[in-house]
Amino acid sequence: MTVSDRWLLPDGVEDILPPLAGRIESLRRDVMDTCQRWGYQLVIPPLIEYLESLFTGTGHDLELQTFKLTDQLTGRMMGVRADMTPQAARIDAHTLREDGITRLCYAGHVLNTRPRHMLTGRAPIQAGCELFGSGSEAADLEVISLMLATLRVAGLPRVHLDLAHVAIYQALIAEGAFSSEMEATIFDAMQRKSVPELNELLGDCAADSAGGRLRRLAAICGGMDALAQARDVLAGASDDVVVALDQLERVATLLNRDFPEVGVGFDFCELRGYNYHTGLVFAAYAPGHGDAVAKGGRYDAIGSDFGRARPATGFSLDVRALVALGERVQHRSGAVWAPASEDTALAGVIAGLRMTETVVQALPEDTDTDPRGRGCDRVLVQRDGQWVVEPL
Amino acid sequence: MTVSDRWLLPDGVEDILPPLAGRIESLRRDVMDTCQRWGYQLVIPPLIEYLESLFTGTGHDLELQTFKLTDQLTGRMMGVRADMTPQAARIDAHTLREDGITRLCYAGHVLNTRPRHMLTGRAPIQAGCELFGSGSEAADLEVISLMLATLRVAGLPRVHLDLAHVAIYQALIAEGAFSSEMEATIFDAMQRKSVPELNELLGDCAADSAGGRLRRLAAICGGMDALAQARDVLAGASDDVVVALDQLERVATLLNRDFPEVGVGFDFCELRGYNYHTGLVFAAYAPGHGDAVAKGGRYDAIGSDFGRARPATGFSLDVRALVALGERVQHRSGAVWAPASEDTALAGVIAGLRMTETVVQALPEDTDTDPRGRGCDRVLVQRDGQWVVEPL
Repeated sequence: MTVSDRWLLPDGVEDILPPLAGRIESLRRDVMDTCQRWGYQLVIPPLIEYLESLFTGTGHDLELQTFKLTDQLTGRMMGVRADMTPQAARIDAHTLREDGITRLCYAGHVLNTRPRHMLTGRAPIQAGCELFGSGSEAADLEVISLMLATLRVAGLPRVHLDLAHVAIYQALIAEGAFSSEMEATIFDAMQRKSVPELNELLGDCAADSAGGRLRRLAAICGGMDALAQARDVLAGASDDVVVALDQLERVATLLNRDFPEVGVGFDFCELRGYNYHTGLVFAAYAPGHGDAVAKGGRYDAIGSDFGRARPATGFSLDVRALVALGERVQHRSGAVWAPASEDTALAGVIAGLRMTETVVQALPEDTDTDPRGRGCDRVLVQRDGQWVVEPL
Repeated sequence: MTVSDRWLLPDGVEDILPPLAGRIESLRRDVMDTCQRWGYQLVIPPLIEYLESLFTGTGHDLELQTFKLTDQLTGRMMGVRADMTPQAARIDAHTLREDGITRLCYAGHVLNTRPRHMLTGRAPIQAGCELFGSGSEAADLEVISLMLATLRVAGLPRVHLDLAHVAIYQALIAEGAFSSEMEATIFDAMQRKSVPELNELLGDCAADSAGGRLRRLAAICGGMDALAQARDVLAGASDDVVVALDQLERVATLLNRDFPEVGVGFDFCELRGYNYHTGLVFAAYAPGHGDAVAKGGRYDAIGSDFGRARPATGFSLDVRALVALGERVQHRSGAVWAPASEDTALAGVIAGLRMTETVVQALPEDTDTDPRGRGCDRVLVQRDGQWVVEPL
């Protein structure tokens, strides 16, 4: 193995260098601080867990995305977390066990066996918030609003928000009483929003049958006008569907009020990537990028698998990807260059400056070093026996 | 599998809950900020790498401590990092390739197959600094001073610092020309500081032979007086040994000047845990705890394995363990409780307050919630049509 082979990193894995690493750290802090100012308390879930607890209630996709390890202490199989949302749900249901409403936030590396999409690679830095104990629309609205506030902090105020509701698809599928094979085929075509395929699959269904409605819904997308079209298509559908449509309309109206710069659209058949979701789901998109920059939704069902049913909603995002997209103003303050010296007075001055400033002290090797090349804009010099800071 | 089994976490792995998670995050930030004010730039090394690059130059112990994974994209073996120091060295030598001096810092989870010591478990949050490109004593001194400054920030100003020098042991072992079996036995007894065993092994060696010196050195520890005793024992030893002793003395003298509250001691046979170290090594201990709270040292040798020889020194610590030991004053600011309402004016007031404050807004389920139980000390109420903050 040659030296250069040895240092090749696996695909989708990278060294994050200065100054990018500093920008990621800065955004990570701002995201966490924003969440905490909305009353979300930080938790640090473990990097590894036994597979049973990592996968409970999450669906097959997460299993494929999870790296497996053998616990040398017990011989049991563990996994490296591929998603922190189920961990937060476990902490709420099993570790904290609080009454009433629990708001949690988190940030940390997750690992995926394969890259989920182009921006993230296999080791995204996931940050997110989860709200447990409220099945209310106000909770959905709070979580979406917090996500949009977070994206604003990240320098992405003008995102497009897609709202969807898992209950609409579920109600129509249940009403249609399709064979499980047919259901899988419909799901697949819906995920890909393939209108031609759905027309072929469901073209014989009456317009107001479940199949006909699914077929016609798949072709609808857009803003408030799309919602009106969907109401036409779904006229006379079950109560669940009407409740979901009403919820989408009220949430969109309030979001338009509070985030006028955000474009809100509807997607009545959105299913992609929502493995454990049950109600209102949402995703934010940055202009020119096909993958969501942040997404989330309601996942009440996970609670029952956890031995304690809890309504839940939340969102998450990849801090690394967000830094690549957002336009944040970076305040890059300079630094002070100090000469190589063991002078006691100089040591005191440097210690004082370092309470608030960056001071880089020269080492014996720094005979020809240009302090500007080290990010310094000022220098410590001795004048009349005193150490003073002067511009470079 | 019962519900409670399912939620059992692996040994040495934990959920970190509020408020502890917040204290860890706060210290993590303060440690990183301190390092950056000394001119160390943040890097974010990857959570996983191919085994070849993780283990180069590090020794067998790290291999045993590393969880192995198969890369599904290539079939090659990867490992989850068990130590970030070799990653920083790889970044310096291979990714950054800067001329002159490079100062890097980092913070993140590492994973160990078995707990390294009682305080940390198997998923420590490692933070550290590495200084590349200077073989000078000033560099050793800078890194130790930064470590002590960091421990002060962590609420541990009064640590005990052990200084040692790997060259002393190495020079004596080379001079003694022991069999490799004998050498391993001596190393083992030295690591455990077993004076009786060393007396038995080396009792026949003349007092001023390499063996005699090793035997006598093992019994010496303490402050400046111990250094004087060591000079007696090592009188007439090779130049390397004298250089090492002089370095220990100068570094200790300057540390005593700058950190008078830190007790500095010497340990002339310290080898424990220093797998890749070559020169001056050091460890800080908190009163009443046998495991070091922070440690590091010089590891010039790693550079040659990396295809680019670079002198290097650095330190690292476990943020999680430090929070358990340190006595930091936590400024716990209160929060504002806001009623459940979609009132536009209230939404504006809350958005304004959240620029600097925590505001927890009630949800429909919060009919009987005591805001004090949610960490709130103030409440938003409507007076004469205006929303105002009042104490609870």
